[in-house]
Amino acid sequence: MNDSAADLQGTRLVALDWGTSSLRAYRLGDGARVLELRHRPWGIMHLPPAPAGADTSPEAAFERALQDTCGDWLAADPALPLLACGMVGSAQGWREARYLHTPTSLDALAQGLTRVERPSGQPLHIVPGLLQPGELPNVMRGEETQVLGVLALRLAEDAGPWLVGLPGSHSKWVVAQRGGIEGFHTFMTGEVFAALRGHTILGKTMAAAAAPGAQDEAAFVRGLQVASGSDAGLGLLSHIFSTRTLGLTGVLPASAQADYLSGLLIGHEIAALARVHPPGGTGGTAPVQPLLCGEPDLCRRYALALRLQGFAEPAIAAQATPTGLWQIAQAAGLLVPGAPQPSSAESLAA
Amino acid sequence: MNDSAADLQGTRLVALDWGTSSLRAYRLGDGARVLELRHRPWGIMHLPPAPAGADTSPEAAFERALQDTCGDWLAADPALPLLACGMVGSAQGWREARYLHTPTSLDALAQGLTRVERPSGQPLHIVPGLLQPGELPNVMRGEETQVLGVLALRLAEDAGPWLVGLPGSHSKWVVAQRGGIEGFHTFMTGEVFAALRGHTILGKTMAAAAAPGAQDEAAFVRGLQVASGSDAGLGLLSHIFSTRTLGLTGVLPASAQADYLSGLLIGHEIAALARVHPPGGTGGTAPVQPLLCGEPDLCRRYALALRLQGFAEPAIAAQATPTGLWQIAQAAGLLVPGAPQPSSAESLAA
Repeated sequence: MNDSAADLQGTRLVALDWGTSSLRAYRLGDGARVLELRHRPWGIMHLPPAPAGADTSPEAAFERALQDTCGDWLAADPALPLLACGMVGSAQGWREARYLHTPTSLDALAQGLTRVERPSGQPLHIVPGLLQPGELPNVMRGEETQVLGVLALRLAEDAGPWLVGLPGSHSKWVVAQRGGIEGFHTFMTGEVFAALRGHTILGKTMAAAAAPGAQDEAAFVRGLQVASGSDAGLGLLSHIFSTRTLGLTGVLPASAQADYLSGLLIGHEIAALARVHPPGGTGGTAPVQPLLCGEPDLCRRYALALRLQGFAEPAIAAQATPTGLWQIAQAAGLLVPGAPQPSSAESLAA
Repeated sequence: MNDSAADLQGTRLVALDWGTSSLRAYRLGDGARVLELRHRPWGIMHLPPAPAGADTSPEAAFERALQDTCGDWLAADPALPLLACGMVGSAQGWREARYLHTPTSLDALAQGLTRVERPSGQPLHIVPGLLQPGELPNVMRGEETQVLGVLALRLAEDAGPWLVGLPGSHSKWVVAQRGGIEGFHTFMTGEVFAALRGHTILGKTMAAAAAPGAQDEAAFVRGLQVASGSDAGLGLLSHIFSTRTLGLTGVLPASAQADYLSGLLIGHEIAALARVHPPGGTGGTAPVQPLLCGEPDLCRRYALALRLQGFAEPAIAAQATPTGLWQIAQAAGLLVPGAPQPSSAESLAA
């Protein structure tokens, strides 16, 4: 065992959270313990450029991104298994991984991995995406792994069902419990906010907050209240215009308009969520318990919106994608056999 | 009388429809008859550049735009009155014209004109904008004149109340009847469509229709139906994501996705309109009669959406801004006195 290999002692899995705009590589030890995390800008749409004379194929670019991020780990211990989730499995990724239909389970995900042979060393395994068929189909890639990780860390407390919210550019709300994922919804809230602010008249009268990061919470709450108040019937396409007119009439200063618009949009998202998952439950079924997982400030905003719609106080979960990848690798038998496998996280398949 | 003046015989008013992106100048004769129309790209945000050494003030730029468009009319008959409506009266316009509060009347608008002195010749008069106060204030500039024109041309048939729709970048729906304008709503439908298509992931999978101008009406109607169908509760932020997922699942070809998204957005606008103005009327009051005024293809789309929501077949009105400007000029006493003033359009103030 050389020095490098000695450094990696205890490593059981290289877990990759590989999305559109960035790549996070986790070196995981027993029980999904994060021994090391590396964050690179090599999202699938931003792979490192090929050096002069190098192979310019997409496959080579993905391999270069992997080597740049954790080539030393793989060289030090060539037997380490590799598991990835996220857009790396999309049609624009390293290899298109299948979609599994909802409802689905940890075991189904583990049995549905796509195997990608590499020029040398262990193959890369990619977690399937999820597809919810119907008149309004829904898809996800990466969030299923995050949700399985959250559940693994929560099941000791409460078997669910949970309504797991992953706020962001495309917010996902996932109904999940012991055994797997029942179904989910997507709201394009974050991306719509950015498009309205950046590319419509609404952005033209907005100014940044006085201090970096300062927020106008009153304006945000005002937006939440409009979304479900007495004028709710006018709908989102009408409500958003008030961002401008409340400015024109001197009610909303320029520095408060972005927070107000954020409140309108998040308010509409959570009002819709409350229509399809009434906070008090439906027809004698127990209410689902909301749980948020994401960037802390965004979770705080969503928690306000959930309370205003009558949901129970949401639990806040830590980012759990490496735990989810560990769970799937374990269920798939990817972890090096023969080594001891104690896990502090209860298996979902239990 | 020189040759030019002879050409202008019968001219009673120079009427200007002056918006953000273009300027339309009408030479009007008795009864609001359009003797000549000139269309220039000199919207208030796109004024002609100053020649070297010329006055670079905003006022000079507006005067240059006016001279370029109809300086020969003004030179030939220096007594011709000038009346303008639209964003030329905004804070970014030639002069900020006041807002009148709704409800309002033709006479109130005519008495509220803003007078702008010019370097020579007649002053320019600008029509007030309208402001509807409230928790969600609403504003318009220019549409009030269009609506007064529509009413003037319609009153012989039906005294209303009308629900006048002006679809576009910011759709306006105006409740109006003999005597004036009761109130109105704004929906940012057109601008939101452009922002979603141009600046979100939804645009990335869209392709132009096979033939220029060809439309996928089935996809448009599918969008309308989703907006008010059994999944309506999921709301707009969720519905729009199906533009992408129906493509991913092979249901909606790339060439149909823009029409589907258009159907979703227009469907949401008209569903909201039906909530605040139920097609069958409310509490014993007569239903309002829908009427559309705008670009023919857009009116056809909105007529489909109105029918699907249970509204009566909408009347389709011709563009009527010059008629509205004529009505206001007449009520304001701007038309040259002493000349005969027969009008084929019944006065709103009658």
